Amino acid sequence: MNFLEERILKDGIVKEGNVLKVDSFLNHQMDIELLDRIGEEFYNRFKDKNITKVLTIEASGIAIACFVAKYFNVPLVFAKKSKSVNIDGDMYVAEIESFTHNCKNQVIVSQKFLNNDDHLLIIDDFLANGCALQGLISISENAGATIEGIGIVIEKGFQIGGKVIRNLGYHLESLAIVESMDASTSTVIFRDQGGNG
Amino acid sequence: MNFLEERILKDGIVKEGNVLKVDSFLNHQMDIELLDRIGEEFYNRFKDKNITKVLTIEASGIAIACFVAKYFNVPLVFAKKSKSVNIDGDMYVAEIESFTHNCKNQVIVSQKFLNNDDHLLIIDDFLANGCALQGLISISENAGATIEGIGIVIEKGFQIGGKVIRNLGYHLESLAIVESMDASTSTVIFRDQGGNG
Repeated sequence: MNFLEERILKDGIVKEGNVLKVDSFLNHQMDIELLDRIGEEFYNRFKDKNITKVLTIEASGIAIACFVAKYFNVPLVFAKKSKSVNIDGDMYVAEIESFTHNCKNQVIVSQKFLNNDDHLLIIDDFLANGCALQGLISISENAGATIEGIGIVIEKGFQIGGKVIRNLGYHLESLAIVESMDASTSTVIFRDQGGNG
Repeated sequence: MNFLEERILKDGIVKEGNVLKVDSFLNHQMDIELLDRIGEEFYNRFKDKNITKVLTIEASGIAIACFVAKYFNVPLVFAKKSKSVNIDGDMYVAEIESFTHNCKNQVIVSQKFLNNDDHLLIIDDFLANGCALQGLISISENAGATIEGIGIVIEKGFQIGGKVIRNLGYHLESLAIVESMDASTSTVIFRDQGGNG
């Protein structure tokens, strides 16, 4: 079990409906030492790639991506989320449709900040169905950038997002993959990633 | 002129309507070395205070606040912005009304993460009319926390936010205070802060 899985067991809270609350250390209140260690871990996993930029999406992805970008010593770009509106200026826009809610959102990045010279590491805190991540991939491909890898802090392995992204051939690393949760017993089972987890 | 003012003159873009675009280094694409230096600068300005937590608001405030929190070695809490909705659970909620747009928003923090033992440093990237900041102050006061200081990266000195906050007696430090801008000549005039600027 790695440092993140240990922390999830210690401070995560399992709620009915497969909800894992990590808001005391990851996505509302944030433990900066943990974020720094996550940044270092992603650096170790992707340091052989020639990363030129880290790409994430607002809001809670930003804090994690900051520390990843610090270890790689490259700029961070964060995509903005918006209800579908007309965008002025030169923007990459991905329209994403939620699997669980009957709504569409846009993921937006200024064209100034992504181009075909970029080798991207995409970072986010959670991967479930992967709608937001699909939007980030769409934007990166539109920009002609190379996606060198995708780093996720917590993947819900029982939802489809991770499978979709791996099927598409992307190098996806999730620091913790939750196989199952049980709110009644407060248990979380992680996927065994063979020492790399 | 300090490092931030120099960077604004170098890479900021002045647009009509008193708009200062710093999206190439501060709030869309982010220069991590600059953010780290901003974190260190706020640490130097507030290190005599017994800061227990850094408080900011999504989205672009998060990146700056991360590095401030790193220097203080304390947790970061970020408030969420939302259109007015019914909030369930134990939340501090501040209703803020925009001066410039005819709309209300809510600023929300879980009650778990702010209490009357906290000594807060509030951080944000921009201060103009100060609506978001007023919401953060309201929440902090509701929690019984002590606001030890407020750190702003860029204050628009010709708008009312900074004056309001200083009139209320808060210790506000802005790394750069823009007195005036002119899009036709691409000039930015900063307030002379007497060596502390």
